[in-house]
Amino acid sequence: LALRQRRLARQVIGIGRHPERLAKAFELGAVDEWTLDPLQGVSAADLVAICTPVGSIAETFQKIVSHLKPGCIVSDMGSTKSKVVATCEEIAPESIAFVGGHPMAGSEAAGVEAARPDLYEGAVYVLTGTPRTDPEALARLEALTRALGATPLRLAPEDHDRIVAVVSHLPHLLAWALVRMAGESSQEDPSLFKLAAGSFRDMTRVAASSPEMWRDIFLTNREHLLTATSRFRKALDDLEAAVAGGDTDVLERILAEGQAVRQSLYVDRRTQ
Amino acid sequence: LALRQRRLARQVIGIGRHPERLAKAFELGAVDEWTLDPLQGVSAADLVAICTPVGSIAETFQKIVSHLKPGCIVSDMGSTKSKVVATCEEIAPESIAFVGGHPMAGSEAAGVEAARPDLYEGAVYVLTGTPRTDPEALARLEALTRALGATPLRLAPEDHDRIVAVVSHLPHLLAWALVRMAGESSQEDPSLFKLAAGSFRDMTRVAASSPEMWRDIFLTNREHLLTATSRFRKALDDLEAAVAGGDTDVLERILAEGQAVRQSLYVDRRTQ
Repeated sequence: LALRQRRLARQVIGIGRHPERLAKAFELGAVDEWTLDPLQGVSAADLVAICTPVGSIAETFQKIVSHLKPGCIVSDMGSTKSKVVATCEEIAPESIAFVGGHPMAGSEAAGVEAARPDLYEGAVYVLTGTPRTDPEALARLEALTRALGATPLRLAPEDHDRIVAVVSHLPHLLAWALVRMAGESSQEDPSLFKLAAGSFRDMTRVAASSPEMWRDIFLTNREHLLTATSRFRKALDDLEAAVAGGDTDVLERILAEGQAVRQSLYVDRRTQ
Repeated sequence: LALRQRRLARQVIGIGRHPERLAKAFELGAVDEWTLDPLQGVSAADLVAICTPVGSIAETFQKIVSHLKPGCIVSDMGSTKSKVVATCEEIAPESIAFVGGHPMAGSEAAGVEAARPDLYEGAVYVLTGTPRTDPEALARLEALTRALGATPLRLAPEDHDRIVAVVSHLPHLLAWALVRMAGESSQEDPSLFKLAAGSFRDMTRVAASSPEMWRDIFLTNREHLLTATSRFRKALDDLEAAVAGGDTDVLERILAEGQAVRQSLYVDRRTQ
């Protein structure tokens, strides 16, 4: 949708498994054409974006690679990068450039009906650089993400995965844990969810995300995620100890430290 | 602001410690008059709403009680109820009705500039009922909250506190823990916050809330909060075990259960 509205591509071809979804994408103006046949769909492409769940990206690339024309750039939009990039770099022949990508934008919503042409505006778009990355393909993708309104950021796949474990995957895991715990508590307190207001709604929003997609994300970033979760538990220990200890000054200081971090981010973001 | 815009009170008098804030409230149309003198401010009131941090509500009531006119109804807007209601019921003489209140609405913002006349629309407004609550005063407050656009809900103080520990206080504690942990991680990964997008922003929003206010809330609901935190840790254990175990079906099932709970709440809310 963003490519077409900004006239950044001569032609956008949608490839999928469900004709009704692809027809909807056409109707919404996201694609010029669509097909159920990946091999036919990619055969004339200058750029292929693989947008399957993370666990299927490499296998999708493997399936199409022999049908790509020389010089084609292939990128993905998976939320974890180390395994995907390593495997896809193995798969890519000399004539094809693979560059891992991850736009830091999106929501819990799924499906083409949730597509927004302005999704990338103001978002950071991570592109992975490794010793095997084609510098020219990387530069072209950086230019393209800029043209979409995003800010490209080069990161090694491992750095990306360690960071998103903290700022994305852990928050999702916590949202699911909070919903799970509240669901159990609501068995004892039937009016529990009536009292759920803004904080609960916002903190559990992403627990409405696709289980299929997030299963793959969590599992392909398992080690970083478990490290982040363990660190989160230590921070929660600190807060719990301050509450249990009952010292108002200590607790207020810890809360004020967190408030300062959060407010600094918010100001940074607004003035970007 | 809501009372005045809906013409539900003949006169609204603002009482506070800071003349500049009260002048701002007047300027914004939230009060008809203001004063720094609580005793003078409450002397003619039919209804007094005590809106200090939870830890100061009872002492504020104690200070003003002898200056209230017979038949005056006093309520508070504190986020925890057991201690506040028990103490205020002790303080209230025969001629004054105390009814605890807690509107399930608000945000991380503080100050009269953040006031919204539509804040209560569609919100649940908890009013506490105890054996000592004056039924007529409770009924009048229910009518008033309805007139503000809210849905009143009677709960025993203890039930309120156990529930909000789960749907409000725990989410706030988690937000502060997440900000604390991410702040520490950003020491090692300077670009960490650049990758923070919607999930991190939403999950940490309430960590920008007032430390003074939340210190009191956490401490006056300490036991329920620590119980909720302990239950949350068990739910997090389940999710971590599923990630660590690496069984895609098990993990997807757990995530789908959470998704179903979250989506059912969202649908309920939209169709209310």
